[in-house]
Amino acid sequence: MTWTIKKMIRLIEKIVEYQNPTVAGLDPKLEYVPEFIKDECFKKYGKTLDGAAAALLEFNKALIDALYDIVPAVKPQAAYYEMYGWQGVKALAETIAYAKSKGMYVITDGKRNDIGTTMQAYATAHLGVTDIDGEEAEAFSADALTVNGYLGSDGINPLLKICGEKDKSIFVLVKTSNPSSGELQDKKIDDKTVYETMGDMCESWGEELRGKSGYSAVGAVVGATYPEMLKELREKLPHTFFLVPGYGAQGGGAEDVKYAFDKNGIGAVINSSRGIMCAWKKVDGATEKDFAKEARNEALRMRDDIRKVVGEMK
Amino acid sequence: MTWTIKKMIRLIEKIVEYQNPTVAGLDPKLEYVPEFIKDECFKKYGKTLDGAAAALLEFNKALIDALYDIVPAVKPQAAYYEMYGWQGVKALAETIAYAKSKGMYVITDGKRNDIGTTMQAYATAHLGVTDIDGEEAEAFSADALTVNGYLGSDGINPLLKICGEKDKSIFVLVKTSNPSSGELQDKKIDDKTVYETMGDMCESWGEELRGKSGYSAVGAVVGATYPEMLKELREKLPHTFFLVPGYGAQGGGAEDVKYAFDKNGIGAVINSSRGIMCAWKKVDGATEKDFAKEARNEALRMRDDIRKVVGEMK
Repeated sequence: MTWTIKKMIRLIEKIVEYQNPTVAGLDPKLEYVPEFIKDECFKKYGKTLDGAAAALLEFNKALIDALYDIVPAVKPQAAYYEMYGWQGVKALAETIAYAKSKGMYVITDGKRNDIGTTMQAYATAHLGVTDIDGEEAEAFSADALTVNGYLGSDGINPLLKICGEKDKSIFVLVKTSNPSSGELQDKKIDDKTVYETMGDMCESWGEELRGKSGYSAVGAVVGATYPEMLKELREKLPHTFFLVPGYGAQGGGAEDVKYAFDKNGIGAVINSSRGIMCAWKKVDGATEKDFAKEARNEALRMRDDIRKVVGEMK
Repeated sequence: MTWTIKKMIRLIEKIVEYQNPTVAGLDPKLEYVPEFIKDECFKKYGKTLDGAAAALLEFNKALIDALYDIVPAVKPQAAYYEMYGWQGVKALAETIAYAKSKGMYVITDGKRNDIGTTMQAYATAHLGVTDIDGEEAEAFSADALTVNGYLGSDGINPLLKICGEKDKSIFVLVKTSNPSSGELQDKKIDDKTVYETMGDMCESWGEELRGKSGYSAVGAVVGATYPEMLKELREKLPHTFFLVPGYGAQGGGAEDVKYAFDKNGIGAVINSSRGIMCAWKKVDGATEKDFAKEARNEALRMRDDIRKVVGEMK
């Protein structure tokens, strides 16, 4: 197989172009959405799943408008859409389409996983094109999807095929940012931890999917909240691009994420969700009307904060 | 905490009432749906995601009508709905509601997983009630959800709360049915395999959620394709109810699943998806018009096949 992973490179190219290795998480709990947006949507649809979904979409579109020329990517978290039923899931699809229309790279954070035949369906749903009796339609069609590798290779292979054929990427959970991640992930299998074992699998899964940068279409999720492990994994997994949650609201700072980067200042994209979505709440004198402006300001501050420790990205 | 897990018992009660420890998987690939249903839906909506979703729903409703008085539960697999976009996800919600209206126990096979705050959103989405600025709405509201425990306790705790408060259940992936499941799951952590470690976590997560039968609201997914491990786990996990995929199309038979049951003939529910949905294809002289009738016949055959090795369920 000889595949060219243009879009994985597109994310890196966009990071280099913007000199900004960050992704804005779109995890829109209804409580994060400014009242004036909710009021308008509830007036139209009532306090219903339709009303909530309409509010999420308006909120997301305004955030995307405020960010697309400075932030290379967005990461909608599927759970916060599913919470509002199929109407919320429709808002997810519309958010993905809107972000893509603005040139953003879209990572759907779904942490999907299943056996081979079913994983094929998830791969089609989130990265591929669905066949409907000879007609084609895109279901969600993001650029990348987060996945869980607990089921091993045959739960990953269908994704590799789509990554190769359609220039898409996956990020496999390796070391997650939550407090209890070590309960399984830090346990030792022979001389290696579970997360190292999963990391090695990522290197292997990505072997034939490497782009010009040396990084492959198979990335890894590694939390900012465990900087020592981030450092260790960066050294051990030279072809695995990292998606790093845990900056900001979860407690990680620029000093914690600096180890995720290589000597060229690339190798990772750092996520902030609440920090950007709810930025206005931490600004003296700001009101909810300023949410988009303050989201942009926070995204710029985060970019500069990380630039300081990473240096030029090239 | 003192919770009464009525619904976990309801599944067991229903199994005992029907003397049938099986669940019908609703994994409706469009190619499984009879042409006459598709024709009707495509005529109405075109060969679109709407048309496909309408066909899935019609197919599911007919299957549910054919099964609800003999099969205690259905297990829709989320991937096959997501593949058809938000329209497919709407069909999932409508399938769940329809099955519940017929008294069936519904297990959404989503294998969801995330960190605590986000898992709370998944728990609300799939088992709970969503708050919309003071108004309540059900997003998907199944009776049970399959989940992946790779992230440890804080990715499971929000589910335990809903299980306790709302009489719902979860099934955690322990030993999956696919060929490569051993790549991680069979590896040894000290003296225990990864799947045993995950099994022990299930026992511990379910400790305060045990019903009258002794089984807790925290079940485990253990594949029929690994009967030796099924036997081993049944002995080691006396309070963990098993959801067993892999019977039928994946190669497992009654002899393979018998070890999933305890001396009272309970302890597990065995899934068949394609075997039931596509039963008419294996019956001489049957046409696709017979799909519902043959699904029922196959469900009865499977019930009797498993009864033979399990004996009376009490």
